[in-house]
Amino acid sequence: MIPRYSRPDMVAIWEPQSKFRIWFEIEAHAGDAMAALGSIPQENADAVWKAKDVEFDVARIDEIEAETKHDVIAFLTHLSEIVGAENARFVHQGMTSSDVLDTTFNVQLSRAADILIDDVEKLLAALKRRAFEHKDTVRIGRSHGIHAEPTTMGLTFARFYAEMDRNLSRLRDARAEIATGALSGAVGTFANIDPRVEEHVCDKMGLVPEPISTQVIPRDRHAAFFATLGVVASSIENIATEIRHMQRTEVLEAEEFFSKGQKGSSAMPHKRNPVLSENLTGLARLVRMAVVPALENVALWHERDISHSSVERNIGPDATVTLDFALARLTGLVDKLVIYPDRMLENLHKFKGLVMSQRVLLALTQAGASREDAYKLVQRNAMKVWTDGADFKTELLNDPEVTAKLSAAQIEEKFDLGYHTKHVDTIFARVFGEDGS
Amino acid sequence: MIPRYSRPDMVAIWEPQSKFRIWFEIEAHAGDAMAALGSIPQENADAVWKAKDVEFDVARIDEIEAETKHDVIAFLTHLSEIVGAENARFVHQGMTSSDVLDTTFNVQLSRAADILIDDVEKLLAALKRRAFEHKDTVRIGRSHGIHAEPTTMGLTFARFYAEMDRNLSRLRDARAEIATGALSGAVGTFANIDPRVEEHVCDKMGLVPEPISTQVIPRDRHAAFFATLGVVASSIENIATEIRHMQRTEVLEAEEFFSKGQKGSSAMPHKRNPVLSENLTGLARLVRMAVVPALENVALWHERDISHSSVERNIGPDATVTLDFALARLTGLVDKLVIYPDRMLENLHKFKGLVMSQRVLLALTQAGASREDAYKLVQRNAMKVWTDGADFKTELLNDPEVTAKLSAAQIEEKFDLGYHTKHVDTIFARVFGEDGS
Amino acid sequence: MIPRYSRPDMVAIWEPQSKFRIWFEIEAHAGDAMAALGSIPQENADAVWKAKDVEFDVARIDEIEAETKHDVIAFLTHLSEIVGAENARFVHQGMTSSDVLDTTFNVQLSRAADILIDDVEKLLAALKRRAFEHKDTVRIGRSHGIHAEPTTMGLTFARFYAEMDRNLSRLRDARAEIATGALSGAVGTFANIDPRVEEHVCDKMGLVPEPISTQVIPRDRHAAFFATLGVVASSIENIATEIRHMQRTEVLEAEEFFSKGQKGSSAMPHKRNPVLSENLTGLARLVRMAVVPALENVALWHERDISHSSVERNIGPDATVTLDFALARLTGLVDKLVIYPDRMLENLHKFKGLVMSQRVLLALTQAGASREDAYKLVQRNAMKVWTDGADFKTELLNDPEVTAKLSAAQIEEKFDLGYHTKHVDTIFARVFGEDGS
Amino acid sequence: MIPRYSRPDMVAIWEPQSKFRIWFEIEAHAGDAMAALGSIPQENADAVWKAKDVEFDVARIDEIEAETKHDVIAFLTHLSEIVGAENARFVHQGMTSSDVLDTTFNVQLSRAADILIDDVEKLLAALKRRAFEHKDTVRIGRSHGIHAEPTTMGLTFARFYAEMDRNLSRLRDARAEIATGALSGAVGTFANIDPRVEEHVCDKMGLVPEPISTQVIPRDRHAAFFATLGVVASSIENIATEIRHMQRTEVLEAEEFFSKGQKGSSAMPHKRNPVLSENLTGLARLVRMAVVPALENVALWHERDISHSSVERNIGPDATVTLDFALARLTGLVDKLVIYPDRMLENLHKFKGLVMSQRVLLALTQAGASREDAYKLVQRNAMKVWTDGADFKTELLNDPEVTAKLSAAQIEEKFDLGYHTKHVDTIFARVFGEDGS
Repeated sequence: MIPRYSRPDMVAIWEPQSKFRIWFEIEAHAGDAMAALGSIPQENADAVWKAKDVEFDVARIDEIEAETKHDVIAFLTHLSEIVGAENARFVHQGMTSSDVLDTTFNVQLSRAADILIDDVEKLLAALKRRAFEHKDTVRIGRSHGIHAEPTTMGLTFARFYAEMDRNLSRLRDARAEIATGALSGAVGTFANIDPRVEEHVCDKMGLVPEPISTQVIPRDRHAAFFATLGVVASSIENIATEIRHMQRTEVLEAEEFFSKGQKGSSAMPHKRNPVLSENLTGLARLVRMAVVPALENVALWHERDISHSSVERNIGPDATVTLDFALARLTGLVDKLVIYPDRMLENLHKFKGLVMSQRVLLALTQAGASREDAYKLVQRNAMKVWTDGADFKTELLNDPEVTAKLSAAQIEEKFDLGYHTKHVDTIFARVFGEDGS
Repeated sequence: MIPRYSRPDMVAIWEPQSKFRIWFEIEAHAGDAMAALGSIPQENADAVWKAKDVEFDVARIDEIEAETKHDVIAFLTHLSEIVGAENARFVHQGMTSSDVLDTTFNVQLSRAADILIDDVEKLLAALKRRAFEHKDTVRIGRSHGIHAEPTTMGLTFARFYAEMDRNLSRLRDARAEIATGALSGAVGTFANIDPRVEEHVCDKMGLVPEPISTQVIPRDRHAAFFATLGVVASSIENIATEIRHMQRTEVLEAEEFFSKGQKGSSAMPHKRNPVLSENLTGLARLVRMAVVPALENVALWHERDISHSSVERNIGPDATVTLDFALARLTGLVDKLVIYPDRMLENLHKFKGLVMSQRVLLALTQAGASREDAYKLVQRNAMKVWTDGADFKTELLNDPEVTAKLSAAQIEEKFDLGYHTKHVDTIFARVFGEDGS
Repeated sequence: MIPRYSRPDMVAIWEPQSKFRIWFEIEAHAGDAMAALGSIPQENADAVWKAKDVEFDVARIDEIEAETKHDVIAFLTHLSEIVGAENARFVHQGMTSSDVLDTTFNVQLSRAADILIDDVEKLLAALKRRAFEHKDTVRIGRSHGIHAEPTTMGLTFARFYAEMDRNLSRLRDARAEIATGALSGAVGTFANIDPRVEEHVCDKMGLVPEPISTQVIPRDRHAAFFATLGVVASSIENIATEIRHMQRTEVLEAEEFFSKGQKGSSAMPHKRNPVLSENLTGLARLVRMAVVPALENVALWHERDISHSSVERNIGPDATVTLDFALARLTGLVDKLVIYPDRMLENLHKFKGLVMSQRVLLALTQAGASREDAYKLVQRNAMKVWTDGADFKTELLNDPEVTAKLSAAQIEEKFDLGYHTKHVDTIFARVFGEDGS
Repeated sequence: MIPRYSRPDMVAIWEPQSKFRIWFEIEAHAGDAMAALGSIPQENADAVWKAKDVEFDVARIDEIEAETKHDVIAFLTHLSEIVGAENARFVHQGMTSSDVLDTTFNVQLSRAADILIDDVEKLLAALKRRAFEHKDTVRIGRSHGIHAEPTTMGLTFARFYAEMDRNLSRLRDARAEIATGALSGAVGTFANIDPRVEEHVCDKMGLVPEPISTQVIPRDRHAAFFATLGVVASSIENIATEIRHMQRTEVLEAEEFFSKGQKGSSAMPHKRNPVLSENLTGLARLVRMAVVPALENVALWHERDISHSSVERNIGPDATVTLDFALARLTGLVDKLVIYPDRMLENLHKFKGLVMSQRVLLALTQAGASREDAYKLVQRNAMKVWTDGADFKTELLNDPEVTAKLSAAQIEEKFDLGYHTKHVDTIFARVFGEDGS
């Protein structure tokens, strides 16, 4: 996580204050549940809430940790300083540090997921708006970077919408994966803590009790979570790659919005570089790099080891902050992307009708030619366009073997762009619903 | 994929015969739909089904491909040889190769997922059986590889069950991710093929039509699929790691089943090595290595490039075949794992009551000691066990500061193992349901 | 490894016959050394060589392994069948299976490295030839996919040459990393085998004795080896990406050679797709995916566990076979790449002089303008080219604030392409040596 | 990079002040070279050095960047504020931002490599000291976590030494990989800057001129660099894994040093957990995760795109800071590791002589038994130890088929530990040199 690629709301989730606040809430809610069960005196449970609106002194906690080398003990000591040692006597009773740490981490990840879900929803709104705006903006579809057949810019946006909509669903699943909490004690047997305490705390923190934990919440959940972030990041790269291609000098079908005051290059003032989408490509790599260590974190020794901890201290904030930033950046990019429909048509016509060859091939087949013969007829005329800059339609009209199969009118009809856009409504209905909502 | 780590059913999915069979079905069903729509003559559609029970000649197809350098054309040529060129005239009409290839790949992945789902269900059955068998088999729980508090072997199996049950759910989601098909033409506009053909073919092949495709089915689906396999593999590593630890000489709480005739080592005949679980650890790495390239495959250029293809030709079979083998191997391993309950108790008692220190700590706190004082009392007696081999309970009973807080009976009670297993039923009910079903 | 992406010489290294041949040589050479040291009778050592020219019966070995579940014992049993049980009595004496397996693996990797080194040398030859051929073929240099300043196609080839030359050096280092052997016994103490046996065998097998081994050769060596393959693969992707960009319809500065009989697309016969370079992009991902598991293989338990084995059985052949194929494919691609110099000039001039803006900026600064003023002068004229299709030079000549600083002749001179190619010889001398050799 | 896992010297390399200082030096040295070549006035070159001892105002630079959205321009503007706009007129002349950025990044990586090299040297010193200290401390060697044959703790340290010594060599190579600089202009043609300026600046900055660059220094260098860090990290994991195993309760052959005041667990005061080595396992994952994005960074578009930048802003500091911290932590851990030789012997004798079975097997073979017969004789006696807790030597002495081959004295001799340590000196000489230096 670096400030340059961070947004404050997501960063806030990972700040020490936020973490200690969650720690406090877990301890205080646990106290309530224990008191209700008669395990500890009610007044002790109540007294802990005195710290409800206190801002914890992070520096002081760090100071205690430097001595005890144990973060949870440091916090509890500080809490004891606030609410009084006598009052704090039953805090954390029967719990183990990981009960607090793991439940907190999942609260943080859930909140992070909420932001990411909101980010994707905003991105979807932008993609949908641009999709309808350019539903009928014809451009050439390309496979292998080579002109294929016409499509529309709206379809491009619509497929990114559909992809991101799947990511929305994946993120919701991923959120559910890690929205669990555990207060099950040293090895998960609830030996010193009643399962009902866990249930109460989870309920208050918006979590589901982990059905079976050890000292820790099982890390397959986190692996699935970070793997999902990696998929979302890859989709970001996918959209970014399209934009980078569209903006390259020879294509120039779109440009990232270029704000006033922005300088493109110290050396070449005329250049407007797709730096945002290139940046998104790099950010995607950064998010993705969390996936492998998260997978490696699953196999802990026996009831737990702590190898996962340093990994998560890093990838927890880094992957979520970076992905949040990337999604927001992409939304702005999509929202303001400057589209050049004229240029799209110009590119489409670059090879004088050649992109219609598939239609002609089909027409010849239907007119009775074998696939092989039709292929050869199309190929020999296509090659003239390619090598001599000829016009494909003209060549076809002048090829007696072609005209023996197809009339001039039939040939003309094959060059109608409307042919390629006739199912756009159908596809839009599939993606956005029948009423486009 | 190497034969050593392969099982025939999964391998069969990826064999050329299987692939060509699916290609054929897609083309034949597409023909039916086109005929129904009046796009091609019914008799041509019908005639293609002549190849229904023909075994395709893979060598012949390879021969044609060597010349045309195009696999789908090679197959279509061969099909034409079988059903007759005139009959085959309309086969593949309006379609693009990827319509066949991508839909087929997803059929194969869906079938692979079915096997994997079945594998996990079998593994779950084994884990559940062993969990109930050892529900009350007490062993020491460990964190950081260090004795912590008692737990039971049944809980160990139960948590692996819960983890694999989550994987079952993830695999079902992953299957849904890739159970889509597309017959949308060169750039996905349905210019030359009616969307209803796609619907018919998908229906017949057990797929859902891809709402919006380009030339290809979007690769975020496959990324999510392979990422899921990576998570499952990591869970396998998790279980394998537990078994490897249990079998190590100093622990020896379990051993992999050692069949007659099997030699452990050419050099040390007494050795029985946990080679299956070590092997599973390696296989997990192999499955996991498919995740990153699958993520890298998402960002294709424009409507498609073919960079994903070589990756998928490899990871498609490799990851599924390896994971299938690993799941089956793990199931056998779990099923036949030899458990040593006596040895578990022996290990548990290794440090003469030390693992009960947490209970004593808690009791002291509840008897009025501050957390800090209780901690010190426990720690000083614990250290005598650690350094002098003393018995923890005896030391406590002889420590006047301890006995000032706790009676002998109270101390005795802290060393009751039943204390730690009292919630096993609760946890089992959470994992397996109230009635254990 | 799949046949489609394999070449026979590399595949041969990994075939069972090759492996058993190396096993045999290790055992036989070890016997010689033991006999020379007086540890075993000379006649037994000699007798083993009876199998020198025998083709081992792989099926028979597999059959024995199916029973013993131990591959080395299976081989030794088969060897005993060939040379006679009495003669074979001392074979493998004091050795452990890994002595044979690990030394063999490193022989295989060394031989694989030799092929890869040869591959890179051939690629370098092709790159060099094309570099000199197109040393002065001017094309536009691009940053961010946007036209920047002129460069030459020769420089493009030269930088790929320099990059691959570094890879050559890395591959030689990587070969040295794994060209070690070990015959040090069960845990590497040489308890049952004299270190001089290891020295003799290594000498005969073209290896260096591993200074200190355990049961296995340390896996940091293999990690470094596969990491190097990953770097080479990434360089392949780098070159492939350049070619893919050059071939895209709007750029079309080069095309992959298109052999007769090859069909580009079943649907669009005019298309010539850069499928080889796209394929190389995918193959690079496949090679790279070996890196992470190779890194994960380093941390074995104590003197060894066998988790690395299944990984290496896969990535050993797969990564080397795929990289060999990719390097050879790339060499052919570079060798036959069709370059279009006219099209390069056409692209260069697309924005009428705009790519010279940096030169003008510099000239203005040198003529006394502040950087900021110069920037603004250049920018405002550049924008006219961009938005109105104006000619940059003409605009500058008509801008009185520009002509106040620069004379018409000075402006003209800024548009000389030779200005940009004046140091090509210097760079070539750096890359290929002063005499281009 | 998080403060918890950071050390100040490495962090300092990556601070804005350090970066701007290097930027300044590159610009100032470039000015000197240009003046010497007569490209700019000497007084302007001299004047820039006025900023030599000025602390740059990072906040001011950020402020300018916020407006211009270009970091190098922001810095140059700030520099201009310091030395005067007139004096600064020729600063950066003919250069492109990447000339500064890439050369600076490599200066930073070189300095980081220097620290890492120093770290490894310190680690080597610790490993060597402990190796000689425990050269003859016998412990059981283990394969698959199962007792194999005796070895010594000194050999364990020595093999880690040898592994880290290879890493030292790799780090030196990696440093050489990225110790290059480039001042070659917009697309690397030196159109606007003389190659001699690059040579001068590189010489002053301790770098080698990049033979051929584009706008950027080729990223295969950085890929090789970060891949090397990944290998080093994996070796750290290897050592950490050994320590974790040694400290686990049932083994307890070593413990991490436990400082006074440190609390092991809030719940179980007797526990001393190997948290440092577990932490190192996690840190290794963090360092390793830089490898894949660094490989993905190699394939930039044409003469450059900026996708690598965000990746490097992150992994540059993160991977080096984390690896520095990990190496230092490991050095302290090795240095202070508490070794328990008595416990090692106790473990060694756990299975009453069984670990000597290989020796007995060999002796039987040499006494004339076939391998198969010898194997069976050893196995049947070994199994009694395993299952009944018998003493292996006693069983052998009582087995008439054994004593028919071996005398009592011969059997006794097989249980001498010295047999296993007789080549320790030889191995030490290989690792540390004949004189142990």
